[in-house]
Amino acid sequence: MTLLQETIKEIRPSDKKALEEAKLHIDNLAKPIGSLGKLETIGAKFAGITGKIINKVNKKTVVIMCADNGVCEEGVSAAPQNITTLMTYCFPKMTTGVGVLAEFTNSTLTIVDVGVKDEINHPKILSKNVMHGTNNMSKGPAMTREQAIKAIEVGIEVVDDLAKQGYDLIGTGEMGIGNTSTSTAVMAALLSLNIDEVVGMGAGLTPEQFENKKSVLKRALDINKPDNEDVIDVLCKVGGLDIAGMCGCFLGAAKNRLPIVIDGLISGVAALCAYKLKPETLDYMFASHKSEEKAVEHLFRELKINPMLDLNMRLGEGSGCPLAFNIIEASLYMVSHMASFNQVGIQEEESKKLVDIRDKNNI
Amino acid sequence: MTLLQETIKEIRPSDKKALEEAKLHIDNLAKPIGSLGKLETIGAKFAGITGKIINKVNKKTVVIMCADNGVCEEGVSAAPQNITTLMTYCFPKMTTGVGVLAEFTNSTLTIVDVGVKDEINHPKILSKNVMHGTNNMSKGPAMTREQAIKAIEVGIEVVDDLAKQGYDLIGTGEMGIGNTSTSTAVMAALLSLNIDEVVGMGAGLTPEQFENKKSVLKRALDINKPDNEDVIDVLCKVGGLDIAGMCGCFLGAAKNRLPIVIDGLISGVAALCAYKLKPETLDYMFASHKSEEKAVEHLFRELKINPMLDLNMRLGEGSGCPLAFNIIEASLYMVSHMASFNQVGIQEEESKKLVDIRDKNNI
Repeated sequence: MTLLQETIKEIRPSDKKALEEAKLHIDNLAKPIGSLGKLETIGAKFAGITGKIINKVNKKTVVIMCADNGVCEEGVSAAPQNITTLMTYCFPKMTTGVGVLAEFTNSTLTIVDVGVKDEINHPKILSKNVMHGTNNMSKGPAMTREQAIKAIEVGIEVVDDLAKQGYDLIGTGEMGIGNTSTSTAVMAALLSLNIDEVVGMGAGLTPEQFENKKSVLKRALDINKPDNEDVIDVLCKVGGLDIAGMCGCFLGAAKNRLPIVIDGLISGVAALCAYKLKPETLDYMFASHKSEEKAVEHLFRELKINPMLDLNMRLGEGSGCPLAFNIIEASLYMVSHMASFNQVGIQEEESKKLVDIRDKNNI
Repeated sequence: MTLLQETIKEIRPSDKKALEEAKLHIDNLAKPIGSLGKLETIGAKFAGITGKIINKVNKKTVVIMCADNGVCEEGVSAAPQNITTLMTYCFPKMTTGVGVLAEFTNSTLTIVDVGVKDEINHPKILSKNVMHGTNNMSKGPAMTREQAIKAIEVGIEVVDDLAKQGYDLIGTGEMGIGNTSTSTAVMAALLSLNIDEVVGMGAGLTPEQFENKKSVLKRALDINKPDNEDVIDVLCKVGGLDIAGMCGCFLGAAKNRLPIVIDGLISGVAALCAYKLKPETLDYMFASHKSEEKAVEHLFRELKINPMLDLNMRLGEGSGCPLAFNIIEASLYMVSHMASFNQVGIQEEESKKLVDIRDKNNI
């Protein structure tokens, strides 16, 4: 059995008993039931993941999957492809968008070369290159089935290793010029959506560039005819190594019973792939922010999760994750430190009435 | 000249030159222009407030205005009025919703008795009681014009004092049973909205309770006929001492050139009052979260500001502010620590092209 098959087999749902107990604990805190909104649901979901009501995060990291996309030669992205290499080398300095936000929140970065075109050689970048950039998906499959599986397994291995190192909260990010195109194609295939519904105008694409991007994506789907019942088939034909790598992270996190955070569109599509491979992975996922990429709405609807932040961000890199870490930690702190009705001096019988009354009256 | 008149006179717009310089600085950081969304606009706005591009927050606090509302005797809130006193005494323990979140983010609480019905006596609660609860606004004015002004001046004094103590980021919160009713009445009056448009169903109000709340608010507006061109008239007739106090905080913050954060509906209505008294106060305001109280949408539209967080919270107390502090600080950290295009190794000419290219292509 391959690592991927083993991983999928080992994934279990989160601990619903612990989740319900945490809910009960949170409902007894001195506030109208539900009035702390997602801070309450995050705290309860986290308890389901760890199996404990009271939790504290000790080590957190954002995994950045770096890879190139052959489809760039079709001009879907006017930025030169070598930006992927350039930014990959920048990450260890902690001065890119995700770097400063990770540093601000005491998170580390786990930088992975899963498929950069150039040779990457840096002590702080994990060398897990499956292939030096994918093939042009508008002319044929981006990679072989084996390569897609290998890239997923890179993600699993990385998270297995993070779990061993004691990390207990993980974020997902990427760097790869052209990956809004690949992720859009994967989403369209998996959710049977029309390309026209999911390709955004971007920030200032000319009508010509926009039409070109759409026709390239349509061509990629027409030529490859990915089987939307087969995630690996979709990933290898119109996906990217970064998406596959992050998909592996979501699977690995669920296997290791670790909470894992979605960043924007691309990591969201990877989450969708993991979900389609094993629906129980959803129990371990948190959505960070409402990306400016409109297509994420389809994703969040399918995954039935709601982001915490509304910051109009569209940088990628995993930059939404550190801020989400902070909110998750605030939620855990609330669960463990907030007083119950009893503690604030309201007797049990009275408190039950009050919980009810305050909730009904929305005070 | 009264303290209120002096304060209004002294308020100046923020420093637009510093704001523009900060924007330019942020646009030169290694990312597509605008791709960090509100993190960018927050950083620039903050620079306008302080007059410096690089900023760091040293001391932050959430001011909680505590006061009772006479309208409670109409049954607009089924919770007993003494919850106001009970919770006011709980705040110093840092174990209420806002307390734990403040502690988590290294913020203090500044607890103010601006109008609690009971006698409040606690070394950590500022005694600034203007009156022991307002009168029932459905039978006549909630307070006199002088009392409303006095309550606003309490807010100004509190912030003047915080500025002297070196606080450089302020949040606004409240505790006062019945204050969704008063704030809804004030908003309806100031924005000439129909009560039916702004009263929410709350979380589980029975149809009868809902109809009662609406008719009480309509009666309050009918009997008092507040002049919607005169903020003080509206505040004293259908407002609350907490709203007036927070309105003073917004004015005081603008006078002292300090950034100040809106929590939910009630503090948002106070911000609206400050804005109507002096539009320049807007330059100093940040919105924290999209409250579950739907009426805030009218507010944010009028104030033309957008919240950062989408957490379905509706607790009040200022509980949205500590989390917003964190995002503001993340923004400042980004502005001061993120590398420019030059620093990541892209030459100036090339970088200008890239900023343009990356932005256009939304990568």
